[in-house]
Formats: sequence, structure tokens, C-alpha cells
Amino acid sequence: MPKPVVLRLGSVDYAQQAWEDLAKVAEVVTVDDSTTRGEFLKSLKDSSNPLSRVQVIARTFASVKNTGRFDKELAAALPSSVVAVCHLGAGYDQIDTAFFEARNIQVSNVPSLVDDATADTHVFLLLGALRNFEWGHRLMLQGKWPSSGRAAGAPVGHDPAGKTVGILGLGGIGRTIVERLKPFGFAKYIYHNRKRLDPKLENGCEYVSFDELLKTSDIISINIPLNAHTKHIINQEAIDKMKDGVVIVNTARGAVIDEPVLIAALKSGKVASAGFDVFEHEPQVPQELLDLPNVCAVPHMGTHTVETIKKMEEFLVANVKSVINSGHVISIVPEMKDKPWIDESKPLA
Amino acid sequence: MPKPVVLRLGSVDYAQQAWEDLAKVAEVVTVDDSTTRGEFLKSLKDSSNPLSRVQVIARTFASVKNTGRFDKELAAALPSSVVAVCHLGAGYDQIDTAFFEARNIQVSNVPSLVDDATADTHVFLLLGALRNFEWGHRLMLQGKWPSSGRAAGAPVGHDPAGKTVGILGLGGIGRTIVERLKPFGFAKYIYHNRKRLDPKLENGCEYVSFDELLKTSDIISINIPLNAHTKHIINQEAIDKMKDGVVIVNTARGAVIDEPVLIAALKSGKVASAGFDVFEHEPQVPQELLDLPNVCAVPHMGTHTVETIKKMEEFLVANVKSVINSGHVISIVPEMKDKPWIDESKPLA
Repeated sequence: MPKPVVLRLGSVDYAQQAWEDLAKVAEVVTVDDSTTRGEFLKSLKDSSNPLSRVQVIARTFASVKNTGRFDKELAAALPSSVVAVCHLGAGYDQIDTAFFEARNIQVSNVPSLVDDATADTHVFLLLGALRNFEWGHRLMLQGKWPSSGRAAGAPVGHDPAGKTVGILGLGGIGRTIVERLKPFGFAKYIYHNRKRLDPKLENGCEYVSFDELLKTSDIISINIPLNAHTKHIINQEAIDKMKDGVVIVNTARGAVIDEPVLIAALKSGKVASAGFDVFEHEPQVPQELLDLPNVCAVPHMGTHTVETIKKMEEFLVANVKSVINSGHVISIVPEMKDKPWIDESKPLA
Repeated sequence: MPKPVVLRLGSVDYAQQAWEDLAKVAEVVTVDDSTTRGEFLKSLKDSSNPLSRVQVIARTFASVKNTGRFDKELAAALPSSVVAVCHLGAGYDQIDTAFFEARNIQVSNVPSLVDDATADTHVFLLLGALRNFEWGHRLMLQGKWPSSGRAAGAPVGHDPAGKTVGILGLGGIGRTIVERLKPFGFAKYIYHNRKRLDPKLENGCEYVSFDELLKTSDIISINIPLNAHTKHIINQEAIDKMKDGVVIVNTARGAVIDEPVLIAALKSGKVASAGFDVFEHEPQVPQELLDLPNVCAVPHMGTHTVETIKKMEEFLVANVKSVINSGHVISIVPEMKDKPWIDESKPLA
């Protein structure tokens, strides 16, 4: 019996050993770093190419440059041998899962392992925005400290005491953020999910409507996945409902915010400051946004740690291995849970 | 009976009401913003100037530009009417307390009220240094993101898990930092003070020698006052003892570190990264330090919040009022505690 064929899209930084072990039970194929989407789609149809027999695809966020989005066209182009797409990361908005479900292809992501590192990033950006640290830092780098006096002239920031934190999306990352924020002495935590959580999962946060969250939060912490429902959920109408001088922090996905609208609100002062790990058209970031001293921003570094990347990469391989041994991914995406066709999946080896 | 004379040095941002109330029971005098040390010392001797009758001095960190340090010369120049110097801030290294004690002048600072805001700043800088956030931010501002790939090319950072945090100076600020760090999942907290604390005050931190702290910490968190014993305590010899790749965070005073030596260690990689709120010769900061992408730095913003500045300013007035009403400051500096001459102090009004 030939070994199952696994396609690895994107680079491996720390899980070399796990991939070497996998190569003992699978034929691991890769694509060239210069591959384009056109070439990729063509190679899937080329019967002389092992890609035409691929059964499991492991992919990274960055590999989108070689394949484009995992959309309707790509789903349709996959050979019938494919049983699973395993994504390295919590957010899998690059994959239109409905088209994969229609072909009985399982999709997995990497939840929970990302929670700690992402929450650490979130707290950093939240403190930076609340305290105008980036503003002071920027003035210091510009040599303004001796001449502009205290804090190099940066506006005075705020303490957590008395402030309400509104968590938009209280999932694993949101809960981890709340745990980290608790000792800082914020007054109150509220959250909005589409449905109220089991109180055991609420971590002391009060459930409120989306409108109530917008109207009463001093700090809005965004932790929702990007999908058709959440795209531009923070738009002009939403910002108009917010308190004057609100602070917004986003480590989820850039496109949940209408970026030009938020830039305008940061310029007017309606939004006092913001912390961003993600951007609507990253890696492209408008110069207008970069120029704002009231934005504390990092280039999608939410899980950019040795320890977390290694754990995520190893878990990706574990998902692939699980498909080979049992026919099932370990961490199926929520919308595919309990689908009857998944129960029928068979081991590949 | 004439009202007691209070000299207010430095500006008032948020405690206007408290000062207005004080002005009902005291003659509050100020100096011009352009005053020099020479002029200040001269006016203390001028019997036509109310400064020659001053009884309580309230001062800010920034007012050093008008008076210079509160050193031996200044202490000697004060009229015999002075009974207390009340400083706005936790760190009072601008005051050489021994020369004031020699003249039976009480010195007070503002402890504890600064703990929260300073600890928030410390956690921000610690996360920034551990995760290379400033490095990524800098590359993004330079437009390197699209071309340099993931995280705009910033080196991969680290998670708290498994790391030992060494607290140099476990006082109010150090303990508040530890409380905030606990949910982040660091492996271990150790501390060094000149003497071991009562275990009730240790907050789960293990007492170690200074050498042991240097040798075993992954992150060194500096929270000691600046004085003759602590100046340049982080020097070449200390850095040589540290782990390769250590992270150093300082929100105490710049001069506890030999700055050029640390800059060299940050360039060599011996010290992986650092977070600084304070600098040896602030507001002057060497360009060489500002140029380092592995330094996350803000211009002395530790207590730069509306709420904390207001609380501190009001507490400063409360100290002055206490001297007027009881003869005693509220928060005498530790080295003056239990001095017999203080017991003899009488109300001023």
C-alpha cells in the first residue's frame, strides 16, 4: 500500500523533528516558494505530479502567497483524494469552509494553543493605548524630550481603575485576556457573543447586547473571528454609538474594522487611542494609520514566539497524523462539528 | 498670628481645588518658572521675600530645573523656619536627606499611590521587551512589512512559560508588578532586597542573594530606589554574571544602571532586550540607545495618568496640611522614621 500523500504549504520553523517523524509514514510533498496560484491549481490536475493524489493539506497563513485563498475555485480544483485541510493558526478566514464541507473535506485549525501568546500581545497593546506610551515613545525618538518637558509632551493617559472593559468575543482568547487583566484593577468586565455563554465560562464578565457594549465600554477588546457576519462590524454606525474617548484594541483580524472609518475617528479624538496587531489589508498598512501617535501597533505578532510557534507547528503535524491514523482531524472547525459525513471518514493508512 | 508660609515648587495639574483650600490656612508662595538655582538660593536670604520665612516646601521632580538638587548647599541655605520638605513622587533621590535631617527638617515622599501606575508601565515594557514588539513596530513604521515577511522581519520573541522573573527590590511597586504578572504564567519569582522580608510580604517570591538573582533570572525587574549603595549596581560585573539573552526592565531610576555598559550588552546580545522608563541622564537619552530596536522605551511615564497624578498631588497637599495641623508629615521617608527630634515637632497653626 503506498504511503498517504501530505502536502505541506509554508515553512517549518521549529517542528522539523515532527515532520521528519511524519515522513516515515507519509509521502510529504511541498511546493516551490515561488509558486503562484495559477501554477498551484494546474499542478493539482497534473497526473504526473504527486499533488494530484494529495490526501491531507497542511497550510500556514503566509502560504496564501503561493495558493491564494482557499475559496470556492480552489476547493473545486482539489483532487477527490483530499480528505482534510489542516490550518496552522486559530483564525482560518483564508478558508471558505462551506465549499470544503460541500466536498466532505474536513478543516482543522489550532485553537487554545494560541490563547496565551495572543492575550499577552493584547494586554501590551491595551496598556500602550490606555497610557499613550507609543505617543511618548515616538516623541522621545524624535528628540523632543528635553524641549517638550514631562513625558516628552505626550498627553496624560489613564489608569484602569474605574474603567469598563468590553470584550467583543469572549472565547478562549477573550477569557485569557480577562484573566490577565484582573489584577490591574479595572472596574467591570462586560462581553458580547452571539449567544450568552454558560455562566461557568463567563469568568465574571456580564453579558450585554452589542449596542450596550458599544455604548458603555471605556475599552473595547476585539476577539472575534472574521467571517461574513463580522466583517466591518466596527463601522461608522458602531463608532458613533461609542463613548467619546474610547480605547479600541484588536488582535483578531483587521477586517472586522472598517479601517478608514476608524482612522478618521482616531484623528477626530472620538476614539482616543487604539492598539492593533492586525490590519485590514496587511501586510499593507496605510501610511495615515502609521503616522498616528495614538496608535500602538505591531505587525501581526500575536503568536510570534519560539514556544508558541513550536507548539502550533507540532499540533498541526498531530492533526495530519490523526487523519492518517483515524480518518479524523483532532480540532475540527466549529461549523463542521457533528456533521454525519465526518463519522464515515476512514484511516488513510 | 500670621498664616504659615508654604512654598510650592513646580506646577499643579489636577489638584487646584486642594491648593485653593490650603490657601485659606496658609500663605502659599511660588517661584517664577524661569527661576534659576542662584536666584532661588538668593531669595531665601532676602528678608523682604516671604521665602525667607518659608516653613513647608512642596516640590515636584521637574522643579529641579529651578532649584537644582536638594543637596548640602541647598539644605544649608534654607531659613531656620523650614520644618518639612514634601516631595511629589515615590523616588526622592533629588533630595540628600541626611543634610535635612541634620537640620531637623522632615522629608516626605508619595509612596504606594504610585504603585499601580508604575507597575502597569513595568508590565508594558516587560512584555514589549520579551516579545520584541518594539522591534516589529519599528520595522513596520519603516515600511518593511510587505518586503520582510512575517512580523516585518522582527526576531521571534518568547512566552512567559518556563521563565524566572527576578525582582530586584520587592517593595510596594515590586509586589504590585508580581501580582499583575501572576496570570501570565511565569514559572518562578525570585527577589533580592538588602534584608529578607517578612514571608507575609513576599507574595510567593523566593528570597535569593544578589548574585543568585543575576545568575538565574531570565527577566530582571528593577524596582530599587537610587542612592549611594544602588548607583550603577547594574554594572559590567553584574551583567557578566547574568544569563545570556536576559531581559532587563527598569522603571526605578536610570542611574541604578551603568547605561553605556548596558547599551554595549544590548548590542552584543548578552542582554537580549530591555524595557526602560528611566534613563541615567534623562531627559537626555543617548542616540545610541534610542537606535536599538531591542529596547522598548518611554520617557518617564510611570505615573503619567490623570488619576494617579491627581491622587499624588492631593496627597502632597495633605502632607503639607498635616505639618500645619500636627507638626508632622504623613509619609516620612524611611530613613527618618523614629527619629526623636520629629516627636518634638509642633503644629504651625
